[in-house]
Amino acid sequence: MPAAAATPAPAASIPRAEALARRYGPGAPALPDGPWNAHLELLLSHRSVRGYLPDPLPPGTLETLVAAAQSAATSSNLQSWSVAVVEDPAARDALARIASNQKHIRECPLFLVFLADLSRNRRLGDRAGQEMVALDYLESFLVAAIDAALAAQNAVVAAEAMGLSTVYIGALRNDPEAVARLLGLPPGCVGVFGLCVGRAAPGAEGEVKPRLPQQAIVFRGRHDATQEAALVAAYDPRMEDFSRRNEVSADGWARRVLARVGTLANFGGREKLGAALRALGFALK
Amino acid sequence: MPAAAATPAPAASIPRAEALARRYGPGAPALPDGPWNAHLELLLSHRSVRGYLPDPLPPGTLETLVAAAQSAATSSNLQSWSVAVVEDPAARDALARIASNQKHIRECPLFLVFLADLSRNRRLGDRAGQEMVALDYLESFLVAAIDAALAAQNAVVAAEAMGLSTVYIGALRNDPEAVARLLGLPPGCVGVFGLCVGRAAPGAEGEVKPRLPQQAIVFRGRHDATQEAALVAAYDPRMEDFSRRNEVSADGWARRVLARVGTLANFGGREKLGAALRALGFALK
Repeated sequence: MPAAAATPAPAASIPRAEALARRYGPGAPALPDGPWNAHLELLLSHRSVRGYLPDPLPPGTLETLVAAAQSAATSSNLQSWSVAVVEDPAARDALARIASNQKHIRECPLFLVFLADLSRNRRLGDRAGQEMVALDYLESFLVAAIDAALAAQNAVVAAEAMGLSTVYIGALRNDPEAVARLLGLPPGCVGVFGLCVGRAAPGAEGEVKPRLPQQAIVFRGRHDATQEAALVAAYDPRMEDFSRRNEVSADGWARRVLARVGTLANFGGREKLGAALRALGFALK
Repeated sequence: MPAAAATPAPAASIPRAEALARRYGPGAPALPDGPWNAHLELLLSHRSVRGYLPDPLPPGTLETLVAAAQSAATSSNLQSWSVAVVEDPAARDALARIASNQKHIRECPLFLVFLADLSRNRRLGDRAGQEMVALDYLESFLVAAIDAALAAQNAVVAAEAMGLSTVYIGALRNDPEAVARLLGLPPGCVGVFGLCVGRAAPGAEGEVKPRLPQQAIVFRGRHDATQEAALVAAYDPRMEDFSRRNEVSADGWARRVLARVGTLANFGGREKLGAALRALGFALK
């Protein structure tokens, strides 16, 4: 059976240096030359989109997204994730209200909730008369959440490969129990995040958001933060410039991080996540 | 700035139906026709590879993988993940021993450890004289682990886009404290999984592993497991056939799941994950 690797990768439409300059912002440290093709260009061109046309998606879109999602690795092939497709406008509205009223949850033609789902393995044990003791540990919840994330990221890449846009909705974790009631989730199953999918509304796509330079993210051998303060200080104005052109306020990165995790005021009630997971049947031992 | 979506996607080299037949195995329920191109083919062709040539990778490979990884969404742009590149043979050997002695950790030309890393945000607070109170909650650990997973999956797709292969090493979680000591990780930073990257050794690539049919994974509106037992029963022989041709033993899916989570004997010590995370500075409130 021929490997995907045997097929030459299709050519990119913009140079590697241009894609990297967008991803890291003007003035970021230079990176060495390296491999480049259309697949890599697609990955580097990602942006989260918060405004959608209501246009329905082409037939087979959902099935293709799910096939891509299922093609991601899954720990020990346990496949401990599921995905809910939410079409009912009242349910969409309720989910939007849980998620700080993000209007794109109501607008987008396809809204998915990715579920960390240990219930399928649990039912398999029930049918075999075996108690699935390992599912009661934090490790099993983490495996399910990571499985869901790997799957979802493949779905995101697949959506962008079809010319669609996406945005993750982590704010479903503001109230996981309410989400579970809305979706009729069994014990051991929780929505870890939502995903809006659709065509970007005119003007909603925006620019590629600059990230921290690689020197702040990558360590050789041992963790090293000696250059970090300087790297962050140089990144901050790049984020401010992006923010001024693309967002409501024009804060740099440091201010945003401080506002987000330096207080519980902007945490959306997520300090209760542990209690919510336990109520939903994750023992988290 | 032109969107990636404006560029027509490159054509696939195999038909959609063939890629789906490999992904779900012979006799799986048919899926409707839908979008198809080279990007989608790349995603659907994924397989985890456990044998590598020692050949060094082309210059710029690591930087390209990291740029793809950083292009994934990150919750509130917190960027609460990092990645360690492990080159020292003694450290590789120690990591292999932690991870049930998986020889590909020693063999592959590039071994990465993806880190859930709240320490960068914590240091930013230290510099600003602000206590980052939200980092002490389970939610913040989960955000960091999901950020790391989204990033890593983009790195996997990028590697495969360059004709390379990968395998995730979840077994680093057999002893997160030992991994942290080896990599000199600060408090609030933990290895969530490793990733081997390299060229597949001859014969090591294997077939695409069949997954559960979409009907067992996707729910419309509300969770529904009424067809699940029948779907799993039909999937089991597809996994047995795959396993007979590609793996050491020839177990179906149900037997493997029972062996994996029906007991703590094959859990690799991961029942201690919660205690290990707390020792590493995640309060998990």
